[in-house]
Amino acid sequence: MKKSCCRRTMSEKDEFIQRIKDIHRIGSIQGHLGWDQETLMPEKGAKSRGEIMAWLAALAHERIIDPEMGELLDRVEQRSDLDEAEQANTREFRKRYDKATKLSSNFVSTFAKARSEALVAWQGARSNSDFSAFLPHLETLVALTREKIEAYGYEGTPYDALLDEYESGMTVEDYDPLFAGLKQRLVPLLHRIMEAKKTNPDPTLPEGMAFPVESQEQFCIKVSERMGFDFAAGRMDASTHPFSAGIWPGDTRFTTRYDELDPFSCLYAVMHETGHALYEQGLDESHQYTPRGDAVSLGVHESQSRLWENQIGRTPEFWNVAMPWFKESFPDAPSWDSKTLNRIANCVEPGFIRVEADEVTYNLHVMLRYEIEKKIFNEGFPLNQLPELWNSMITEWFGITVPNDTLGCLQDIHWSMAAFGYFPTYTLGNLYAAQLLEAMDSDIGSINGHISSGDWSEMLEWLRNRIHKRGSALLPANLIEEATGAPPSSEAFLRYVEEKYGAIYSL
Amino acid sequence: MKKSCCRRTMSEKDEFIQRIKDIHRIGSIQGHLGWDQETLMPEKGAKSRGEIMAWLAALAHERIIDPEMGELLDRVEQRSDLDEAEQANTREFRKRYDKATKLSSNFVSTFAKARSEALVAWQGARSNSDFSAFLPHLETLVALTREKIEAYGYEGTPYDALLDEYESGMTVEDYDPLFAGLKQRLVPLLHRIMEAKKTNPDPTLPEGMAFPVESQEQFCIKVSERMGFDFAAGRMDASTHPFSAGIWPGDTRFTTRYDELDPFSCLYAVMHETGHALYEQGLDESHQYTPRGDAVSLGVHESQSRLWENQIGRTPEFWNVAMPWFKESFPDAPSWDSKTLNRIANCVEPGFIRVEADEVTYNLHVMLRYEIEKKIFNEGFPLNQLPELWNSMITEWFGITVPNDTLGCLQDIHWSMAAFGYFPTYTLGNLYAAQLLEAMDSDIGSINGHISSGDWSEMLEWLRNRIHKRGSALLPANLIEEATGAPPSSEAFLRYVEEKYGAIYSL
Repeated sequence: MKKSCCRRTMSEKDEFIQRIKDIHRIGSIQGHLGWDQETLMPEKGAKSRGEIMAWLAALAHERIIDPEMGELLDRVEQRSDLDEAEQANTREFRKRYDKATKLSSNFVSTFAKARSEALVAWQGARSNSDFSAFLPHLETLVALTREKIEAYGYEGTPYDALLDEYESGMTVEDYDPLFAGLKQRLVPLLHRIMEAKKTNPDPTLPEGMAFPVESQEQFCIKVSERMGFDFAAGRMDASTHPFSAGIWPGDTRFTTRYDELDPFSCLYAVMHETGHALYEQGLDESHQYTPRGDAVSLGVHESQSRLWENQIGRTPEFWNVAMPWFKESFPDAPSWDSKTLNRIANCVEPGFIRVEADEVTYNLHVMLRYEIEKKIFNEGFPLNQLPELWNSMITEWFGITVPNDTLGCLQDIHWSMAAFGYFPTYTLGNLYAAQLLEAMDSDIGSINGHISSGDWSEMLEWLRNRIHKRGSALLPANLIEEATGAPPSSEAFLRYVEEKYGAIYSL
Repeated sequence: MKKSCCRRTMSEKDEFIQRIKDIHRIGSIQGHLGWDQETLMPEKGAKSRGEIMAWLAALAHERIIDPEMGELLDRVEQRSDLDEAEQANTREFRKRYDKATKLSSNFVSTFAKARSEALVAWQGARSNSDFSAFLPHLETLVALTREKIEAYGYEGTPYDALLDEYESGMTVEDYDPLFAGLKQRLVPLLHRIMEAKKTNPDPTLPEGMAFPVESQEQFCIKVSERMGFDFAAGRMDASTHPFSAGIWPGDTRFTTRYDELDPFSCLYAVMHETGHALYEQGLDESHQYTPRGDAVSLGVHESQSRLWENQIGRTPEFWNVAMPWFKESFPDAPSWDSKTLNRIANCVEPGFIRVEADEVTYNLHVMLRYEIEKKIFNEGFPLNQLPELWNSMITEWFGITVPNDTLGCLQDIHWSMAAFGYFPTYTLGNLYAAQLLEAMDSDIGSINGHISSGDWSEMLEWLRNRIHKRGSALLPANLIEEATGAPPSSEAFLRYVEEKYGAIYSL
């Protein structure tokens, strides 16, 4: 650890990687403390925890912007002997370094303060459905974000600088064609389903029936284990909002939530988070603590969770396998067959809330936010008209009327955190998942057959090799192309939903 | 966090304290990760955890031995305007700095490696009761410890350098008189008790009766809350070996263990660890992350745990208060009265194992180890004769014959970690606790009365003011003198055990 001595004996490539590893170590500690904060921390620990988290953030920042690190990066970048991993590390760290050095510390702390004030204001505004209480904060955040965009710079449109933050390499030019077909085909599909439901209504859970938490836990652990999650190298706990945290090799943790009246809520949270967690457990340990060893992007991460949750978990084949476990854990549940269980798990219903949306409407929610953000940052859309815009789009796309802003433009936390550009990665996840499923199907044979067999290891192995082990070797879009043979597209997803819901609703 | 800028504007006292706080922050993170490791960490997380712990240790070490820190310490030490807290911080950091800089990093890593090899060898040797397998490792550790003693330096005897590591300021010259009376009066007391037990045997737990873990947890939480532990600022969890960790303000955690056949094991672990945890919760937050704000020593820490566990918890008055909770949690238990419950909690029995010992024999176990360590480091006692020495002392003091080294000199982990000089702090804890109890009694009135009343807040308040809030303002012995009006002595403890067990066994 004595740097002055190391510097003399280490090559510049070694020193570069050593410094990167130290920065990543700090990140892992932040990840661990963040996990603890959401799951176990006593309430009065919040102040100290906030303080130590800020301290760690500053510690990492200091090491990132260290001028010696900048010089080292310059020198390593210019070398001609970099292998794939070294190129990935250089590419990813360059982005991080540039972003960290392009903003003044004065700007960073002003922005942090504005965000934390906006978060509080948003919580109040959402409770009271009072957009006007949030508006001035949103205006501040958008103005600061515009400053950030200018500092970062961009080639195409201003919004591109934000999109790139959450899905490296993606711009409006990439997203627009991807999303183009979605609305065009999803809206009519939704309308056909709504028609079909009139004569063929969805089954429902028996009212007031309790599914004990311990039984849900037992059932979900069985599913997670079958998916391949290694509980000797991870944990499942409870938290208000389910999440997963790949803290360090051998220790990947995810959470779920329990609703006594609805075992599906817990099950699909567990399948979703296990999907994320399997990605983390499958990363290449030999690249630990370097960008190359990290998951590549939010979009690809979401593809792993959605593939397990939806394409595997919400199928009659899954329910054929899980039925005995379900009956064992919930002996008092009605004797549903797998078709009925699957139908309950796949009810389509246009609603106001994104996080409760089914596979057909979910991406429409996301696209709506993408369109609005694009208008804000590329066309200067006036923020005071945001509720009207939101509500009119919901009516046009879903045929329902937003009763208040709590159920409308105030529902998501993202804007109060200035996380503009984040939403589209959710849809990317769904598109990538469908593409991966098709490619997997053609590589290892019928996925329905694999799911039915109850042995899901070959599917996991395929994901391990094509996605997990590759970490951040390539940019996300290139990784998807390498894995599936085709660049990102919405076609596979549209085929998938049209076929799936066509069958479920006998369209 | 930008040091180059801070240095220009900060005073040397401020910079000194800023650097100390950063070192303490690293320590808090280590404490948190250590807690997690013992309670929740999945087994395959061990390798990464070990790596990150070593990295944090190196990070802290690097900051301690930083020559700029040494110069700053020199300058701050020479100032004449230091208040009590600043003096404490300077005094304590000087020790840490000297110890860290007096050992070469080569020595430190050789020692760390020898310790980890010795630990493995000790585990095997203890399982097989094979002292010879541990002997070469013990010889290495003692030889390296002698090197360490020479590097640290000492004024009186070599062993003093070790004692000071665990209880700042304590030497053989301090311990010898403290311990002198103990053996002389405890051995005869033990013999009188053994005589009395022949005609008046101890009651026992009903064989095979189960005390459900959930009920034990419920009962113990009630006791811990009544002691004053703030569960909104802490947690209780389970681990193999109970421990407490005052991680950061507002977040103090302790653990217990559950034995379905013995609710007393859990109860007294909880009272013991709550005693430690109350100390941590009572530290002065305004001195957070500085030595002044830390608990002062192992001995004083142990006084807090033992006072609650033994002087409060193992009394008929306690059992009068706790009886209804006990009956509520364990409705199937025999209808013991508080006298019987208290007698069960206070059985005296000479045994081989320190950690299972009662209040009469416990300190004899500790003194035995103190005498042996003193012989090793001050008289060059040959290590191959250690088992014979151990066994003959046990026979002489306890009147029992050690059947094998697993139950003898291989029982404790301490020597395999080279923690020579640690044991005496356990007895200090008992002596301090008895002294504190007497002083408390004369300050706030009959402690038995306080315990009986079921309102223990005044006792806690007294400890808060006399011990907890004072942190490391003074050296441990001076703190005890400030709190009790008298320097550390064994008299109060001897009065306490003789009176207590005289009553219990009608001597």
